[in-house]
Amino acid sequence: MINVMRLDLDDARILLEGGRAEAEKIGIPMCIAIVDESGNLIAFERMEGGKVTSTTIAIDKAYTAAAAKRATHEYGQVSQPGGPAYGINSAIGGRLMVVGGGLPVIIDGAVVGGIGVSSGTPAQDQQVAQAGLDHFLARAGK
Amino acid sequence: MINVMRLDLDDARILLEGGRAEAEKIGIPMCIAIVDESGNLIAFERMEGGKVTSTTIAIDKAYTAAAAKRATHEYGQVSQPGGPAYGINSAIGGRLMVVGGGLPVIIDGAVVGGIGVSSGTPAQDQQVAQAGLDHFLARAGK
Amino acid sequence: MINVMRLDLDDARILLEGGRAEAEKIGIPMCIAIVDESGNLIAFERMEGGKVTSTTIAIDKAYTAAAAKRATHEYGQVSQPGGPAYGINSAIGGRLMVVGGGLPVIIDGAVVGGIGVSSGTPAQDQQVAQAGLDHFLARAGK
Amino acid sequence: MINVMRLDLDDARILLEGGRAEAEKIGIPMCIAIVDESGNLIAFERMEGGKVTSTTIAIDKAYTAAAAKRATHEYGQVSQPGGPAYGINSAIGGRLMVVGGGLPVIIDGAVVGGIGVSSGTPAQDQQVAQAGLDHFLARAGK
Repeated sequence: MINVMRLDLDDARILLEGGRAEAEKIGIPMCIAIVDESGNLIAFERMEGGKVTSTTIAIDKAYTAAAAKRATHEYGQVSQPGGPAYGINSAIGGRLMVVGGGLPVIIDGAVVGGIGVSSGTPAQDQQVAQAGLDHFLARAGK
Repeated sequence: MINVMRLDLDDARILLEGGRAEAEKIGIPMCIAIVDESGNLIAFERMEGGKVTSTTIAIDKAYTAAAAKRATHEYGQVSQPGGPAYGINSAIGGRLMVVGGGLPVIIDGAVVGGIGVSSGTPAQDQQVAQAGLDHFLARAGK
Repeated sequence: MINVMRLDLDDARILLEGGRAEAEKIGIPMCIAIVDESGNLIAFERMEGGKVTSTTIAIDKAYTAAAAKRATHEYGQVSQPGGPAYGINSAIGGRLMVVGGGLPVIIDGAVVGGIGVSSGTPAQDQQVAQAGLDHFLARAGK
Repeated sequence: MINVMRLDLDDARILLEGGRAEAEKIGIPMCIAIVDESGNLIAFERMEGGKVTSTTIAIDKAYTAAAAKRATHEYGQVSQPGGPAYGINSAIGGRLMVVGGGLPVIIDGAVVGGIGVSSGTPAQDQQVAQAGLDHFLARAGK
């Protein structure tokens, strides 16, 4: 039997809050999803003007980051033509996201959840995800 | 061209708040999903102890209620064996939910969104969805 | 609560009409799909000789253009190997189309729907979608 | 942040072992799946002669039992025509199994995983799942 550390709903709200603040600062309404360490959804918000396609994409970025323990933009690099993970993007019915904007939430070296952001450019999505993560880690004193 | 009235994120949070209060009152941790009038997700929360299966089921109950403009428990009645909508439950890849817990949000006769709840019995799910709806309508002065 | 402007069925028929006229002019029978601003189908026609695969593809191009507020050929550019959105094409179960032929319908700066065309080359599909859009905008006095 | 107790691979092997012994005793080759408390697969074995359809069904029974915290045969009872959960069987793309053979693994009141069995009659499947569970609980001193 093992013990697993996992985000709770309060943690998820803090991650959302940090992401939303950054999204408002750069003026891009976003879809933001928070999942637990197994990739299952805990909380989600679509800001006014967030894209409909991004509801699914944000959730799947968070899923990928947590469940594969890897930022989605890193998958973007290794899945380029000729790369070792080329073609991985269509795995799991297309849920395996290789576009930036999904980050694992890591505490003391363990993945405890994930944040996924979508509606801006991948760079903006990643920036907002990072802001949510930074806000959470600062609050957690990490 | 037509104009469509739709829940915004603030509305969604009020619906979540009302549902969550009722869930806490009856002591059943729930998954609660709020969608717009087209069935697309606006906000979601899984309370501590809400079921993993219910993440999808809550979202699909809200989708069904808003997009089909009908409470899911009403579909439960007409989809019984021999009923006119028998078998509808597996439509749309199984997203068409006929189990209670999904309610359309109706303002001035127009469906503006939906709320879907899952993790308890269907009766409890419906009760929590109704509480979210009542809380929202009271706040909106309807 | 917010108000959303959306194509109605009459609008959708005008978009179809404009696309069909162009398709006949260039002699390529097309599948043409019109969706609302949330990406849900309003009208569809497969001209005699339109491809069966294109029924789904035209619908998904229209969905992508409206729900992501972006022409599908623009996704084609940013999703090339090395591009920022590389790998996005398999998102949402493969519904996120990056091949030309899907255009958002924009009125006064707001996306009110989308048109998706498939059966020709992507350049022909895009040309027919644009013709549908131009015809509609001219009729709407925009 | 919360802590979650979860089956590890050694536990999963013990569950498999107990189920396999019972399957051999009754002479029915089975597919047996073990998942963690979030419903994700830890271990799986198809005994010689186990059904191909049962690979998916065993996994989905284990998933349902763990992620919904409920034995699948209990869902079978409440989802009968006229029952409160009628129609639930097609939820989550049909993964929500209401046929006997899926049991949650519960330690000290907490669901830590699930076992799903398929290839015999539902009664045989349930018997084999129960045997796996009993073997595990005996070994764990519970």
